[in-house]
Amino acid sequence: MALIVQKYGGTSVGDVERIKNVARRCIAAQKAGHEVVVVVSAMSGETNRLLKLVSQITDRPSEREQDVVAATGEQVTIGLVSLAIQAQKRKAVSFMGHQVAITTDSAFSKARIKSIDAEKIRAALKKKHIVVVAGFQGVDEDGNVTTLGRGGSDTTAVALAAALKADACEIYTDVDGVYTTDPNVAPAARKLDRISYEEMLELASVGAKVLQIRSVEFAMKYKVPLWVKSSFTDDPGTLVCEEDPSMEDVVVSGIAYDKNEAKIAIRSVPDVPGVAAKIFGALDEKNIIVDLIVQNVSKDGRTDLTFTVGKADLVKAKDVVRKIAKAIKIKAEDVEMDEQISKVSIVGVGMRNHSGVAAKMFKVLAGAGINVQMISTSEIKVSCVIHANYTELAVRELHTAFGLDKPVSEGVAESVPLKG
Amino acid sequence: MALIVQKYGGTSVGDVERIKNVARRCIAAQKAGHEVVVVVSAMSGETNRLLKLVSQITDRPSEREQDVVAATGEQVTIGLVSLAIQAQKRKAVSFMGHQVAITTDSAFSKARIKSIDAEKIRAALKKKHIVVVAGFQGVDEDGNVTTLGRGGSDTTAVALAAALKADACEIYTDVDGVYTTDPNVAPAARKLDRISYEEMLELASVGAKVLQIRSVEFAMKYKVPLWVKSSFTDDPGTLVCEEDPSMEDVVVSGIAYDKNEAKIAIRSVPDVPGVAAKIFGALDEKNIIVDLIVQNVSKDGRTDLTFTVGKADLVKAKDVVRKIAKAIKIKAEDVEMDEQISKVSIVGVGMRNHSGVAAKMFKVLAGAGINVQMISTSEIKVSCVIHANYTELAVRELHTAFGLDKPVSEGVAESVPLKG
Repeated sequence: MALIVQKYGGTSVGDVERIKNVARRCIAAQKAGHEVVVVVSAMSGETNRLLKLVSQITDRPSEREQDVVAATGEQVTIGLVSLAIQAQKRKAVSFMGHQVAITTDSAFSKARIKSIDAEKIRAALKKKHIVVVAGFQGVDEDGNVTTLGRGGSDTTAVALAAALKADACEIYTDVDGVYTTDPNVAPAARKLDRISYEEMLELASVGAKVLQIRSVEFAMKYKVPLWVKSSFTDDPGTLVCEEDPSMEDVVVSGIAYDKNEAKIAIRSVPDVPGVAAKIFGALDEKNIIVDLIVQNVSKDGRTDLTFTVGKADLVKAKDVVRKIAKAIKIKAEDVEMDEQISKVSIVGVGMRNHSGVAAKMFKVLAGAGINVQMISTSEIKVSCVIHANYTELAVRELHTAFGLDKPVSEGVAESVPLKG
Repeated sequence: MALIVQKYGGTSVGDVERIKNVARRCIAAQKAGHEVVVVVSAMSGETNRLLKLVSQITDRPSEREQDVVAATGEQVTIGLVSLAIQAQKRKAVSFMGHQVAITTDSAFSKARIKSIDAEKIRAALKKKHIVVVAGFQGVDEDGNVTTLGRGGSDTTAVALAAALKADACEIYTDVDGVYTTDPNVAPAARKLDRISYEEMLELASVGAKVLQIRSVEFAMKYKVPLWVKSSFTDDPGTLVCEEDPSMEDVVVSGIAYDKNEAKIAIRSVPDVPGVAAKIFGALDEKNIIVDLIVQNVSKDGRTDLTFTVGKADLVKAKDVVRKIAKAIKIKAEDVEMDEQISKVSIVGVGMRNHSGVAAKMFKVLAGAGINVQMISTSEIKVSCVIHANYTELAVRELHTAFGLDKPVSEGVAESVPLKG
């Protein structure tokens, strides 16, 4: 008998029929002899409806009160899922975050889980209940309701799996697994049977939003075997797990892209100590996250500094940069912004033991006539910033070049789209 | 400086604009120098939407899980009202039932409040916050969410006022006070400036649903001065308070009617001990509440037994009665049901010191050609069951006969309808 934590996202509980379907799946797992804990999100559209109400009241909401409103979405779902399980003649009990002491810090709207008291859940499991827990929400040490940020239910599920020492954590979603890349962009994309935590982290952080990045970090830290599965099929899905030697045979596991960044270039920056610190310090003060940074070698005591930020932060970032540019006497025309960019990344633990991977990537892109504007590498990832128009072309060319295309005989039946 | 508990019902917080209006009213009370605690209901329609979701899942929901779903309505409102107050530059903080330990028994969907820990509220008031508390919901001793039944937010408000020893509890609704009767039925109905707890209880229990009956019992027990006011006007409203001698000058304070009962008559019941006990015992076992009971004097060792039950319980009651009738050998045709009835009641503490009030009621009804089918009296109330067709006529005739019509000069401007 195994202990399994299942998590169903908003689409999987999007209406009454789907909720009944989730109940059937939980019961099937219990009938197969497992203890079952289910984590659910708000019904799809519900969190947006609630946040819209908030925005109609005020455009600068206190995050404590916003969390009080937003947390109701998951509360509705746990009640309905429990009722659906009971209607199918099995025992079920629902718990909100505070009822099982999913204790977080007090960073409302993006709280982090600090501890979970698994006792109440264990007691309910012992009584043969399917335990239904609200995702996304927790409680701080003063008893205030907190939420974990978008996609936070994934993290709730993994944290519960870790606290309960569960045998597996299954994330049910509207795709049937993790793909080598977005099948909407590259029809030859293949579903992966397995992927390492590290690769998944890199893929998640570069735009493949099938799992919340924090949930993968959590799973890696506590070694929770994490399955990504579809709630609408019986496909085994993708297992996200610890790296094993066989994984290194594959050089590139997946290709991701991100169109949500913008590039800021500052030309002719005086190449003296402290200038970069000034610029990035000021951006940090405004909570603007900088992704890639490239600084060219100096020429005549001046250098070019280029970096990317999220498109949503571009207006704020412009203000900061223009102010500093003025202070260090850089001409306005030497500050350039570009929103027409995208970041394409190849990811694979096999890169550690294979040389020439980056060089091959540049060659493939050059072969397709695509200019590389910025480059960033990590141990298991190479990212290139290119013009946004060439995103899809780059993804397809790289997918083929690194041997990820599925065999032609497999057909197109399984090309369920990957969100991202 | 007074401590005031204000309660706003679903209509008063029915949309974003109305929520902003509620915020303005709370702030006005604070600016007038008071400490303000606000209790709010779910936005109008919200509880029904949630219960509809439940009914789509199952027609026999576990009440524990149903309460988990239903309690979210109030949670949304406390967040939004707090945000609206903050948007108007005043401090506010929201609390759910469990956060201020509104401890109830475990009778899900109709729980009763056992205790409230007012410390957290007092601390927030000291910090100049307007404190916004979710009505309708509590928590039992095992930490389960409970709800108090329809209209339960009134009870939350009065219980909080009692626990905080508040100077007043103001119930804001869509009517501007308690009326002598339903102005939709009798346009001459007058708004009452004051009414005693006891009279309000009798009026509430006979169909004037302006206040939940339990909230009035609570207010009477803890002597909480209770105001019924409109959230849309500045009318002073009606004060529900302890009886004082001047109230007894008025013989009849109000007239209520109830069309939600049905009558069951059993003819030729053997007039032997234990028959009535058998019938009403069986009804009680099925949780059917019997209102009026009339048994005529015996004739030839047989008697007629007539009683009323809620229309919603009629089908269940029929089954019970037919079964017993068969057992004690009463012919099927001797069991009669009648749904075409209504109960009209006159209420007033002045009855205690005035004789002939019931007789006058019968005379008025007879004068209007209305046959009285059943009669029930208490110290401050006389109820008559009549044919439903004559309800409005009876109410108007009694209203005039007992001197309740407003002076003609008052016009019709204030005839805001009384719910019921």
